[in-house]
Amino acid sequence: MGKCYLVGIGPGDAANMTGAARAALEEAELICGYTRYVDLLRPLFPEKRFYTTGMTGELERCRFCLERASEGLCCALVCSGDAGVYGMAGPALELGADYPGAEIIVIPGVTAAVSGAALLGAPLGHDFCVISLSDRLTDWAVIEKRLRLAAEGDFALCLYNPASRHRPDFLRRACDVLLEHKAAETVCGLARNIAREGESVRILSLKELRDAQADMFTTVFVGASSTKKIGERMVTPRGYRT
Amino acid sequence: MGKCYLVGIGPGDAANMTGAARAALEEAELICGYTRYVDLLRPLFPEKRFYTTGMTGELERCRFCLERASEGLCCALVCSGDAGVYGMAGPALELGADYPGAEIIVIPGVTAAVSGAALLGAPLGHDFCVISLSDRLTDWAVIEKRLRLAAEGDFALCLYNPASRHRPDFLRRACDVLLEHKAAETVCGLARNIAREGESVRILSLKELRDAQADMFTTVFVGASSTKKIGERMVTPRGYRT
Repeated sequence: MGKCYLVGIGPGDAANMTGAARAALEEAELICGYTRYVDLLRPLFPEKRFYTTGMTGELERCRFCLERASEGLCCALVCSGDAGVYGMAGPALELGADYPGAEIIVIPGVTAAVSGAALLGAPLGHDFCVISLSDRLTDWAVIEKRLRLAAEGDFALCLYNPASRHRPDFLRRACDVLLEHKAAETVCGLARNIAREGESVRILSLKELRDAQADMFTTVFVGASSTKKIGERMVTPRGYRT
Repeated sequence: MGKCYLVGIGPGDAANMTGAARAALEEAELICGYTRYVDLLRPLFPEKRFYTTGMTGELERCRFCLERASEGLCCALVCSGDAGVYGMAGPALELGADYPGAEIIVIPGVTAAVSGAALLGAPLGHDFCVISLSDRLTDWAVIEKRLRLAAEGDFALCLYNPASRHRPDFLRRACDVLLEHKAAETVCGLARNIAREGESVRILSLKELRDAQADMFTTVFVGASSTKKIGERMVTPRGYRT
């Protein structure tokens, strides 16, 4: 029986990793993950064994990690942000049924909704929805329905995977759905390359967001009707002042 | 001009604090916060100055902190979990307009949606909504509407503030709304006293959740239709296996 840690390392740099995440990586004899994220860790743990796969190799590295753990090796499968939010915790727990010798332990991390929000101010200060615009594993009809209901409920929104090479117009399509229920002047925000080189934020209206550029390293925030721009920050009040 | 850090310290113990949060607290000359959370930090920073207020003293300690920062003192206002999610980042940024001498910097942390999810498995592995059941600052009609729309959209849900002494039946009322659109057998979870003494989790059906006990140290998770119980874990698949 070996441990298989599912470790959220937070955004970009090591400063946003928790003490528990660091301890799990220190304990692990083998660290598995997507090449790009593991490369962030190599300098911190120069003595470790690493196993990396590319963007679409999720299940392969997950199985590899569970297999080694069930053989008794202490393993860590790393995810950017948090392992539970569109991360590998779900797939690992599903596959884990085939590896009773692997003890799966999820170590929480700072997901992009939270780290991007901190950069922008407090866009998620009241009730909010998190929706991925990726249709790789979800039908667009489901995504659109959820966007519409979230807008109808006047939730603040955080959108993951707003665009990729294969779906350059998804953010525009999402904005068109949101504009049916949200005002064109709704305060929105973009957080790019959070805690990495080229980190930047931008505050803009929903109308402007419709035409904004986003990529897979962008996290998008759409305000509720109460969301305000205060100086250069985006704030969704919880209501303390009213 | 002094810094005013808004620091999310994560759940309960220091292990879930990020490196950046710890660095901000080390830099701060004065640490402000709710008595209970500051007490967790005193042993880590025995030499610091502290300023604490009770549960409803949010605005008072926020003003105190901003005032000291605008006088040039480096201050940290601490929040349990993340400062942006139902935390003090919003109020501080709103009040901050009155204290141009205070430079507000938000340091993200592991919010209860993420830490509770990790304990339970991966209940938030796909699109989800975060809703507070507290009607202290929000009308129940708004809460109910959001619950209804979240259920209609088949989101997974994380509910903050599910109950308190003054509203012992709010979780039951919320479940009754959710049961209009979600099946009685929907997989749900409770995470109590996350990363603190008495930490526990429980997986149960929505029907059972309706009659479950919750308090202000409980975070509630309600699954989507795809959410499964796998062993003793609650998992909302992202769809990798389909």
